[in-house]
Amino acid sequence: MDVNFDVKHGLEGVAVAISSISYIDGEKGKLVYRGFEIEDLVENSNFEETSYLIWFGSLPNENELDFIKSMLSKKRELPKKIVKMMKELPKNAHPMDVLRSAVSLLGIYSEKTNSSLENAINLTAKIPTIIAYWYRIKNEMKLIRPREDLNHSENFLYMMFGEVSEKSDIFDKALILHAEQGMNASTFASTVTASTLSDLYSIITTAIGALKGPLHGGANERVLKMFEEIKSIDNVENYIDSLILKGEKIMGFGHRIYKTYDPRARILKNWIKNLFINERIEYFEIALKVEEYVIKKFKNKKIFPNVDFYSGILYNYFRIPSEFFTTIFAMARIVGWTAHAMEYKKNNRIFRPRSIYKGPKGLKYREVKGVEN
Amino acid sequence: MDVNFDVKHGLEGVAVAISSISYIDGEKGKLVYRGFEIEDLVENSNFEETSYLIWFGSLPNENELDFIKSMLSKKRELPKKIVKMMKELPKNAHPMDVLRSAVSLLGIYSEKTNSSLENAINLTAKIPTIIAYWYRIKNEMKLIRPREDLNHSENFLYMMFGEVSEKSDIFDKALILHAEQGMNASTFASTVTASTLSDLYSIITTAIGALKGPLHGGANERVLKMFEEIKSIDNVENYIDSLILKGEKIMGFGHRIYKTYDPRARILKNWIKNLFINERIEYFEIALKVEEYVIKKFKNKKIFPNVDFYSGILYNYFRIPSEFFTTIFAMARIVGWTAHAMEYKKNNRIFRPRSIYKGPKGLKYREVKGVEN
Repeated sequence: MDVNFDVKHGLEGVAVAISSISYIDGEKGKLVYRGFEIEDLVENSNFEETSYLIWFGSLPNENELDFIKSMLSKKRELPKKIVKMMKELPKNAHPMDVLRSAVSLLGIYSEKTNSSLENAINLTAKIPTIIAYWYRIKNEMKLIRPREDLNHSENFLYMMFGEVSEKSDIFDKALILHAEQGMNASTFASTVTASTLSDLYSIITTAIGALKGPLHGGANERVLKMFEEIKSIDNVENYIDSLILKGEKIMGFGHRIYKTYDPRARILKNWIKNLFINERIEYFEIALKVEEYVIKKFKNKKIFPNVDFYSGILYNYFRIPSEFFTTIFAMARIVGWTAHAMEYKKNNRIFRPRSIYKGPKGLKYREVKGVEN
Repeated sequence: MDVNFDVKHGLEGVAVAISSISYIDGEKGKLVYRGFEIEDLVENSNFEETSYLIWFGSLPNENELDFIKSMLSKKRELPKKIVKMMKELPKNAHPMDVLRSAVSLLGIYSEKTNSSLENAINLTAKIPTIIAYWYRIKNEMKLIRPREDLNHSENFLYMMFGEVSEKSDIFDKALILHAEQGMNASTFASTVTASTLSDLYSIITTAIGALKGPLHGGANERVLKMFEEIKSIDNVENYIDSLILKGEKIMGFGHRIYKTYDPRARILKNWIKNLFINERIEYFEIALKVEEYVIKKFKNKKIFPNVDFYSGILYNYFRIPSEFFTTIFAMARIVGWTAHAMEYKKNNRIFRPRSIYKGPKGLKYREVKGVEN
């Protein structure tokens, strides 16, 4: 019996779950977490509070907020054995490979608990430490241990660079922007892993592996590489023309769901514009020119910048090396990944799709191999 | 705009790819790799040759077979740093957690190559070593290094137990049976990761994480636990009745695709039956009785044993501890996982499904928090 249905390539337009975590209006360019528009949250909330919202479904009261902040700050330290393993890694290891391996090992070294939420908090607290430690190990700098008195973003930037940044609130808001985005590829891959009732460390190792791909989280690293190659604003048109001529993808444009300006890109662009009033922001002028030129060139196709187009400029402003950009994405998206895994398991059905067979049939080993019967 | 479509829960009956790797006829109970029925391959082929078939699409000639055998035997040794890391792990670490972490680290320590096939061979060669080394480290036994003069299965059993098994061909055939099974959950999860154009180590780390779940590869470990609990053949009916009464799942029965007897279960059962002529096989009589009783009880539902029902008995016969069963599954399925990743990337489209939002809308932070505007 052949399977008689169409292939849903990339599962475009196929719904795989009912979810109350986030809502995207791709036509209007709206992103909503648990009923709150992303613009509202980046203006009023912070990463810890938004994490609570995404996990629990409603904003925390004062006690609940204290609780989540305290949990997230107490669990930042890594098991010594994992730090030791990281110190032995070759210095050229990609930060996403290190993060994936350290998270996998955390599945062995963490306290055993059946609470997915405890594990989610544990990973959310420790991922920034893995990133910062690897940054410093790689660059042969002394490790800076986490400080419980700092908030999530302050502490991360402190562990990276040894000082408490005055602008950590902008970084914090960028984490909110990246925390959740429905059934994107990494969230979906990890939901498939969750559907076998595997553990949360397996689920998040999956998500990190998927996020690493250049068509997904790896994109903002590539956008910055493009800006580096363009070098000067005068070179923008030539560079883009030559990409188009070669039929190559222009990184940081277009999105499966957003058919208008990505709301996250708009927010990031505004922040950078405001920073730019007082100081030079590397690559920002090039980016503006690329955006203008690409939108003009593809006027009929309505192609707009996505979040990856501007996030790299902001991370670069915070002195984060481009190789680490995708880990920053992971540091935020861990909240959405874990929320979806927990939600899916409540009404679980293992993923087991089909493929349509287009290959040989009826072959016999002995005939093909010329073996006598 | 709400999304107006049904949820494809578990993606049952949805085709996500065109594939020429394998073909399952769930009604007739047939499993076909690249045109060859599984019964034909287990009778005539071996693991190395079947791996070549699954990867390349046709059976190898003599030179090609020599080539793949040589590649698979030369790449068995693990990087010293990974062995060192394994020796430091707590002895109670689950073998699947160790395998997932070691494969992730192999992504850092392996030679960099853009050839997915080279990486696939590298992983297929090294996974048995990871499993055997962890078995011996866990049990505080001296490591036994791989021997190039032995075939894949002989060498694995030799690294585990220090002797060349006379019955390694049965083990080898069990690997063939488990090498590929279409878009099962682990293959699908890893295909989603592949669709972001992530690397093969991320892809296989994903697959191992998904396989670990008790609804997937973890099932045969649970089947053996059930046999252990049943203890004696006289206890079968009571035990099964009590499971049914409590509404619990009977492990090792039923399959999303096979609506008749799983062909792999039939083959395994026959092998065990043949071994049983000359020696006692632990749990086999209990298994036969469980099968008979469950089929009778669910006569109208047509529930049959699946591959997990009999594979554990065979692995137990080879003295493999039940905790390691799922790693044996991984050792075989690595071939299918890597074949699907390579095939999907040839005609790639990133997976980005949708979910249907059922949650609150139109909330305002300041109103909910009681903050004055």
